Amino acid sequence: MKRCAIYAGTFDPITEGHIDVVLRAADIFERLVVAVARNAGKDPLFSIEERTGIVREAVAGIERVEVDAFDGLLVEYAREKGCRVLVRGLRAFSDFEYEFQMALTNRKMAPDIETLFLMPSPEYSYVTSSNIRQIASMGGCTRRFVPDPVARALEAKFRAAE
Amino acid sequence: MKRCAIYAGTFDPITEGHIDVVLRAADIFERLVVAVARNAGKDPLFSIEERTGIVREAVAGIERVEVDAFDGLLVEYAREKGCRVLVRGLRAFSDFEYEFQMALTNRKMAPDIETLFLMPSPEYSYVTSSNIRQIASMGGCTRRFVPDPVARALEAKFRAAE
Amino acid sequence: MKRCAIYAGTFDPITEGHIDVVLRAADIFERLVVAVARNAGKDPLFSIEERTGIVREAVAGIERVEVDAFDGLLVEYAREKGCRVLVRGLRAFSDFEYEFQMALTNRKMAPDIETLFLMPSPEYSYVTSSNIRQIASMGGCTRRFVPDPVARALEAKFRAAE
Amino acid sequence: MKRCAIYAGTFDPITEGHIDVVLRAADIFERLVVAVARNAGKDPLFSIEERTGIVREAVAGIERVEVDAFDGLLVEYAREKGCRVLVRGLRAFSDFEYEFQMALTNRKMAPDIETLFLMPSPEYSYVTSSNIRQIASMGGCTRRFVPDPVARALEAKFRAAE
Amino acid sequence: MKRCAIYAGTFDPITEGHIDVVLRAADIFERLVVAVARNAGKDPLFSIEERTGIVREAVAGIERVEVDAFDGLLVEYAREKGCRVLVRGLRAFSDFEYEFQMALTNRKMAPDIETLFLMPSPEYSYVTSSNIRQIASMGGCTRRFVPDPVARALEAKFRAAE
Amino acid sequence: MKRCAIYAGTFDPITEGHIDVVLRAADIFERLVVAVARNAGKDPLFSIEERTGIVREAVAGIERVEVDAFDGLLVEYAREKGCRVLVRGLRAFSDFEYEFQMALTNRKMAPDIETLFLMPSPEYSYVTSSNIRQIASMGGCTRRFVPDPVARALEAKFRAAE
Repeated sequence: MKRCAIYAGTFDPITEGHIDVVLRAADIFERLVVAVARNAGKDPLFSIEERTGIVREAVAGIERVEVDAFDGLLVEYAREKGCRVLVRGLRAFSDFEYEFQMALTNRKMAPDIETLFLMPSPEYSYVTSSNIRQIASMGGCTRRFVPDPVARALEAKFRAAE
Repeated sequence: MKRCAIYAGTFDPITEGHIDVVLRAADIFERLVVAVARNAGKDPLFSIEERTGIVREAVAGIERVEVDAFDGLLVEYAREKGCRVLVRGLRAFSDFEYEFQMALTNRKMAPDIETLFLMPSPEYSYVTSSNIRQIASMGGCTRRFVPDPVARALEAKFRAAE
Repeated sequence: MKRCAIYAGTFDPITEGHIDVVLRAADIFERLVVAVARNAGKDPLFSIEERTGIVREAVAGIERVEVDAFDGLLVEYAREKGCRVLVRGLRAFSDFEYEFQMALTNRKMAPDIETLFLMPSPEYSYVTSSNIRQIASMGGCTRRFVPDPVARALEAKFRAAE
Repeated sequence: MKRCAIYAGTFDPITEGHIDVVLRAADIFERLVVAVARNAGKDPLFSIEERTGIVREAVAGIERVEVDAFDGLLVEYAREKGCRVLVRGLRAFSDFEYEFQMALTNRKMAPDIETLFLMPSPEYSYVTSSNIRQIASMGGCTRRFVPDPVARALEAKFRAAE
Repeated sequence: MKRCAIYAGTFDPITEGHIDVVLRAADIFERLVVAVARNAGKDPLFSIEERTGIVREAVAGIERVEVDAFDGLLVEYAREKGCRVLVRGLRAFSDFEYEFQMALTNRKMAPDIETLFLMPSPEYSYVTSSNIRQIASMGGCTRRFVPDPVARALEAKFRAAE
Repeated sequence: MKRCAIYAGTFDPITEGHIDVVLRAADIFERLVVAVARNAGKDPLFSIEERTGIVREAVAGIERVEVDAFDGLLVEYAREKGCRVLVRGLRAFSDFEYEFQMALTNRKMAPDIETLFLMPSPEYSYVTSSNIRQIASMGGCTRRFVPDPVARALEAKFRAAE
């Protein structure tokens, strides 16, 4: 049996869709590690410290969930943590292909680690970190799409940038 | 925590891809029920007794797995069994959409039951019960695609039909 | 300018997703004809009279909407009605391809008639007439997925079938 | 080197899209066999003799092309013919998945036979035998979508059915 | 009723496919605003003045069409213009998902504004601004894919870059 | 008949999936040119000399295959080489759309040149040059995914970067 799961991502920033996945996964496993990737592409909006802090605030109070930052290969991090399940949210077709590529690559590198896919609620299916960043950058309100601490962080970030 | 999972299907007949999903799910949960749907469309090749028997033979020896037949709504059956996780294999895009429709419909009817998706090995990704039936009906050999008891059952079925 | 639109389908039965499309289209055009196809594949659950009656009941009170039955080629029916826009709901990828094939075929036969696509609310994206029929046939409750007159019609139909 | 290719299908009936594939494949290989499957699902519109005859008429004059009927496993037929390439047209996403499943299944049964995919002209991408049959059954004109001998055969078939 | 529609994009540069959408939309609505987004990603080939000028030249003579530049959130711009319909062209699957995400995000921010999708002619379905730019950058002729003023602008741009 | 084919790409770096395509294409045509594109996006990991060298090493010993570098429009390069077939590997849906766009664009520019698609083995379907680069950049072992000379080149490259 595999009782610990990891939900990894860049979370730049975490959205209501991500939190929906956290809630569902935390309801299935004994322990869920939300793992924030240090390496978030070329130019993340939020630093690793900011992203981890916002995730912590956003998932505070959900039982059996811990938050951590990681870098390097996810499968190696999972082994260090003693977790043999990777949890992913699947919202859409474009996710499907990327996620399957990653899952099969990870399986080849670590056959003992399994990737499980969960479906977030369809009302969050169109919310991505990247369109949240775009809306915020144009001065749009993001409170319908992200938890309050995230909306505040986005406003502060773009106000500072002006 | 959710420790019991159901893997339901018509299994007409069970393939190497299905067994790959059984093995992966049995490695994650404490108890896995492989549930064979009595209702298998208009004209199943094998009767419910045959399908259940072949599944039993094919998964014999995999720990923590039990085999059962069911009819009616899957979510009601899951509740009777005390299982709150439905496991599904996702092989391909066409699966994706159908599976998501079913999972969202089931979630609407039973919000306490979660659907989890697993990826079978890519070497089984193109094997479907329906192309197995077609190959067997043309006299082709199916031993590369299904476990031995299934290949024997297919041969017997089509020899009888001649 | 094109002021009249047709929303055609088999509506076997009409769902909340269809009604969402009706509401959106009725808000754009001066006149919307909901056209129920007499020919609904091999074995519709409801007769053309039943389907048309249920649609009438379900869209009663939506302004600028009329309900009609038709058979034959949709583009010829549209011309008789003096409507040069066909409205379709696009929920998912599998819709996309079928709808595009139909729209391009219709355009080839009638270049003056345009097909417009609308997106129903994502909360209805997984509801299809065919899974509604399946749930009802297993005794499941469909009131979450269809308007009340439809749920009552489904219950009556399957109670009668017992 | 592989100099002979087979283009197999049910061709019920052959369309302009199929002929586009024949022309392209005949331009690449030394010999192209258009192979009409005897078994065309439950209820083909045209008999195997009719389908083969219409194909013959439609491809008459294209060099290096021969027409044949076959049944049983396509890979065994290919071997009998001494052809080790199967040619397929890929028009759309829904083709993609089905075609890949078939190609991978055929490769497993006959690793020496390769499947090649060609793209028909986009102006034919939405034309399928099944929507041609549907248009003809409603009395629509199919001359824009199929070669003349096919349009005549469709008209004769449906006039006879009245 | 909604009589004004907006067709927004970066148009870097406008292609025959875009113009096909303009023609179809101008035939349905009383007023069509072609709105060129100031913000066109990191590094547009043409400036906002160039893009707007080329669009103006390319749609000159199409009735009921006006051209404008905008920045910020599209839904806010639409409200300022008094338009409550956003028109989009859907050519392909990859469009589908991105377009649906945008449309659902816009609907959440402005439920009174509806997004309508149109299908350009399949002969333009593979033409994207980005492959036009790539062909032009390699010295290829783009006159088959874009209106003449666009081809001239591309040639001038890349000749200047040498 | 068309006896020479070109398999073009950036090959940054070449993977087992690419080599699978080379083997299959070399088995069909009389002559196969593996053409490495000088222009490999903004920031290739390997230089054109390195990429060409690694490809040469990786395909050494496969009969009828030559390796070359090219720039500019692929269809013009093909004509110079006297080759009228472009070979592409299709692994997944996301390939499908991009590949079709390219193929149709190339066909418009050079109607005498045909694009053929081959399916690599499914065990390589998830291996892309970009995830190979990512794994190597994190210090992961790539020997399961690429030929030995490529793995060595990746290790040397990233060791040098430290």
